Amino acid sequence: MKLFYARGACALASHIALEEAGATYEAVRVDVRGGEQRGPGYLAINPKGRVPALATAQGVITETPAILAYIAQTHPQAGLAPLDDPFAFAELQAFNAYLCSTVHPAHAHRHRGHRWADEEGSLADMRRKAPQVMGECFELIEAQMFKGPWVMGEAYSIADPYLFTICGWLEADEVDIARFPKVAEHAARMAERPAVRKVLAEEAA
Amino acid sequence: MKLFYARGACALASHIALEEAGATYEAVRVDVRGGEQRGPGYLAINPKGRVPALATAQGVITETPAILAYIAQTHPQAGLAPLDDPFAFAELQAFNAYLCSTVHPAHAHRHRGHRWADEEGSLADMRRKAPQVMGECFELIEAQMFKGPWVMGEAYSIADPYLFTICGWLEADEVDIARFPKVAEHAARMAERPAVRKVLAEEAA
Repeated sequence: MKLFYARGACALASHIALEEAGATYEAVRVDVRGGEQRGPGYLAINPKGRVPALATAQGVITETPAILAYIAQTHPQAGLAPLDDPFAFAELQAFNAYLCSTVHPAHAHRHRGHRWADEEGSLADMRRKAPQVMGECFELIEAQMFKGPWVMGEAYSIADPYLFTICGWLEADEVDIARFPKVAEHAARMAERPAVRKVLAEEAA
Repeated sequence: MKLFYARGACALASHIALEEAGATYEAVRVDVRGGEQRGPGYLAINPKGRVPALATAQGVITETPAILAYIAQTHPQAGLAPLDDPFAFAELQAFNAYLCSTVHPAHAHRHRGHRWADEEGSLADMRRKAPQVMGECFELIEAQMFKGPWVMGEAYSIADPYLFTICGWLEADEVDIARFPKVAEHAARMAERPAVRKVLAEEAA
């Protein structure tokens, strides 16, 4: 498998999950700042022009929640999702869906407001509000959604690298992670995992 | 099971899926215009204050992609997802994730721009741009993602009611569905399904 990723992007979640699963894969960096994601080579892989994309023997999978569930299902020995419990699997999927549908867009308004508005004043308005919106998302995660010690409770799962990835954006969004003690402790614990350290070093290289 | 929905909301996808699955359920309307979703009664069900929420014997599931996959997994006889094929399941999940993470937010900027910006000028800017953004999403769906005759190909799946639901928003978003012949034909065919007719009548009642 090949995982197409970009530095600092949400593809980090899938990258960590592949490593935690013990998957055989190659990580391929896409030069998003240079616009490689909009070139014909990458658009042939992912017509959306976004990362992540996971190229498998059967075809390409896009969208972080779909890739994460695929990694868990194809590496059951890694125990990254409750595959035999539809309710627990749904709770896990609901967490990941919240990150992709609400939290990631909240973050995107900080620097990618041009996706939804044209005027400079609108983009500045979105940038100003992004810390508040991201903060409210994390208040909900801290108070209502995070079970502990891992996101979904006793078992480490594909929700953990995804939360960790988005937590990494809080500082740039001017949200103090210390407001969310459970989330902050989780992020610190995640950063010590061998798989996370390996992937972070590779993406930074 | 109880499905909490609101008229015109994305909960319609889960409502149709429950009906197609032959599930035993009750549909409970939430008065979103009246603000019921922010009252203590509903917040105890879903702290996010949004629909849909599916109350099961084990607990509450939120987020459309998670609810849809749960319905498919707990009603395997209905054949609403390729449960034994992780790659095909991932493709299906990727489609639904695109709807929840990109298309639904594109639509939300038309009337709910206050989630991401404060100034009236910004909200007007988002409203003006929403038809373009929604149109671009559906260009991608039409050209790259929709397999036909159903979203994922030969088999009707949980992606079909979700696409149908969001298609129902195009007219209000000033996007002419006729620009997307495959999607338009799909929407017309969906509207004739007995389960869809039954659910639409119930939500309109």
